[in-house]
Amino acid sequence: MISADEALRIILDAVPPARKENVALRKATGRTAAEDIRAGEDIPPFRNSSMDGYAVRSSELKAASPERPVRLAVAGESSAGHPFEGHFRKGSALRIMTGGKLPGPADAVVPVEIASESGNRSVLFSRPALPGDFVRRPGEDIPRGQRVIAAGDLLTPYHLGVLAATGHAVARVAVRPRVCIVATGDELVRPDRARGAGRIRNSSSYALEGLVRESGGRPRFMGIVRDRKKAIRKMVREGLASDVLLITGGVSVGLHDHVREALSRCGVDIRFWRVNIRPGSPLLFGVSDGTLVFGLPGNPVSTGVTFLQFVRPALRKMLGRNVLFPSQFRALIDGPIAVKEGKRCYLRGIARQEGDLLRVRTTGSQSSGVMSSMLKGNCLIILPEGTTDLPSGAAVNIEFLRDPF
Amino acid sequence: MISADEALRIILDAVPPARKENVALRKATGRTAAEDIRAGEDIPPFRNSSMDGYAVRSSELKAASPERPVRLAVAGESSAGHPFEGHFRKGSALRIMTGGKLPGPADAVVPVEIASESGNRSVLFSRPALPGDFVRRPGEDIPRGQRVIAAGDLLTPYHLGVLAATGHAVARVAVRPRVCIVATGDELVRPDRARGAGRIRNSSSYALEGLVRESGGRPRFMGIVRDRKKAIRKMVREGLASDVLLITGGVSVGLHDHVREALSRCGVDIRFWRVNIRPGSPLLFGVSDGTLVFGLPGNPVSTGVTFLQFVRPALRKMLGRNVLFPSQFRALIDGPIAVKEGKRCYLRGIARQEGDLLRVRTTGSQSSGVMSSMLKGNCLIILPEGTTDLPSGAAVNIEFLRDPF
Repeated sequence: MISADEALRIILDAVPPARKENVALRKATGRTAAEDIRAGEDIPPFRNSSMDGYAVRSSELKAASPERPVRLAVAGESSAGHPFEGHFRKGSALRIMTGGKLPGPADAVVPVEIASESGNRSVLFSRPALPGDFVRRPGEDIPRGQRVIAAGDLLTPYHLGVLAATGHAVARVAVRPRVCIVATGDELVRPDRARGAGRIRNSSSYALEGLVRESGGRPRFMGIVRDRKKAIRKMVREGLASDVLLITGGVSVGLHDHVREALSRCGVDIRFWRVNIRPGSPLLFGVSDGTLVFGLPGNPVSTGVTFLQFVRPALRKMLGRNVLFPSQFRALIDGPIAVKEGKRCYLRGIARQEGDLLRVRTTGSQSSGVMSSMLKGNCLIILPEGTTDLPSGAAVNIEFLRDPF
Repeated sequence: MISADEALRIILDAVPPARKENVALRKATGRTAAEDIRAGEDIPPFRNSSMDGYAVRSSELKAASPERPVRLAVAGESSAGHPFEGHFRKGSALRIMTGGKLPGPADAVVPVEIASESGNRSVLFSRPALPGDFVRRPGEDIPRGQRVIAAGDLLTPYHLGVLAATGHAVARVAVRPRVCIVATGDELVRPDRARGAGRIRNSSSYALEGLVRESGGRPRFMGIVRDRKKAIRKMVREGLASDVLLITGGVSVGLHDHVREALSRCGVDIRFWRVNIRPGSPLLFGVSDGTLVFGLPGNPVSTGVTFLQFVRPALRKMLGRNVLFPSQFRALIDGPIAVKEGKRCYLRGIARQEGDLLRVRTTGSQSSGVMSSMLKGNCLIILPEGTTDLPSGAAVNIEFLRDPF
């Protein structure tokens, strides 16, 4: 049995590079930038006002005071989209709106609240202005040519805003990997069919489809296949046309485990089977002609944990993502945790903040049959190999299972 | 000017209740449960084995020891989907696979690793078994009738797994609100057109579309409308057919701000305009016949901040979501923060973990013109009204801007 780290190294070494495509900006949220993107234009593109007010020559207001206000003639107006086109004479001020372009000789803006315009097209200033007051310089936010997005960035709504602002209507992104999902097992019944004695519902495939989508892949559920060699081989061959094939069930040591045999006979080079982890030890990984094949334990908790720990990093690497692993946070445990094995353990936990610290407790029974633990919990507690019994208050690493927003 | 809390109260009070619809389980990730959902079946549905091994009567192995092993006849086999149908005689053991159904009289499973089967259909046990060993009881994970999902839960992949496992093929969810987005401003140019002097790119609409989608809404970008009363009124009337109308720009005190007038003339009851926050103070909110109308400042940073603080909670409430606000975390600031105003401030910050604590620093200039701050930052630092200058090391509340996974 190999270690979790060794398994991950083998998987990541086998990941082929991302393919690239263009998408319209509007559809790019959640995609991964395939290349560095540089600003095509300065942001802001020209000197403009950050307030509604008056554009002035600050030198002309040097002596302004409440006792001896300075009066300037109103030369006209500049607003967003309507720059002042006239000649900005000495001794004048320009009405300017937020975002309005400053005329060449003006070097400061006085906010409308601290100036007083009189009816006869003139305005009084009762204090000085400093050069640069309320003026945004061209490129002061993002200069033209600056890298605004790095290859491998996950594109958020804010990225789309910056791309649009710098003149990009299209983004070059990684193609989403096609991920085929096959469930194996004579015991499995669809949720909308009568169950029958000794049978259980197929549930892992539904969770996997959602997890694949959240991880940037394009899932395709191929259906339930019975524990018959020929049927499994047929499904495997079809699944190998995709970028990733996920097969649940049929990889433990039971007599009915035909999956390994089917994979070998379909030309899949099995790189490892069984990893020193709990839950999820019967994890299998192989490669066939650029397609990554994962045999995931059929138990829904094991399916979820092995997906998060081994398949998600592979999908992220395939997308060229520059962050493959979730942040780990330190948390203190409420109550002791008994550890009896040398495996790396992933416990389902409930984390909360208390003052400046994170605290975490387990969801209760850690049997991999306890599907509800993935709902009750909001994090995985990761105990490295060789961890011994932990007293209450010990620090552990956790990874959030869902958005703590 | 009203306070942020008052603004939020007015907005949330105006939110109409969620409408409901059914969706296939496969399409339900990211949707919001509209009703409580109870398990239709026990999980697990019958007594089954949590290991590959042998099902036994534990009473028959009481005296088993390495010196005096107990031999039982192999009665047959039970595997997932293939329960044993025969008579389970005394003095016999049953080969059983993980998930296999236990025959009535068996009360324990002995893992295959600690039993030794000989060729003549018998198996030797060299230690006792306890009743219940490696046996999963029906309903021990989730008993039939238990609430597995609460109205208002955001459906994650794990929820879908549990729904499928308990016999649900369809989920009752909240209808996604239709959100129309209108950008106003003579200065705005699409990212794929020549820019022209004194003009800037429309960027907020792209960010808003992504933010609406992430918040569970269905965005529709209606386009850029020029600062002309009639054109704005036409767009407003069209937008009022949706559940939410977001209009960016045109709500500050400038001369060209026709939006408020257009809204009033279209029958929108304006509930507030201007909030004591920074950035984003020119926020406007109104209601027309069940449609919520937000006038958001056009500056992209202000658009983003006001969306997160005021529009997202409204969308979540409209969906019936049971969590309206993101978790706030406590973090210690690196370096002092000068606070000069009585407003609630939202600074863009960069948070990181150091040992057991979170630390945060600002992204630099907090001018609302600095669009790059939403990319550099990973959180908002929230300073309540009346905060005075903060020394380095002071504790502040932060909200993550993106997934810290």
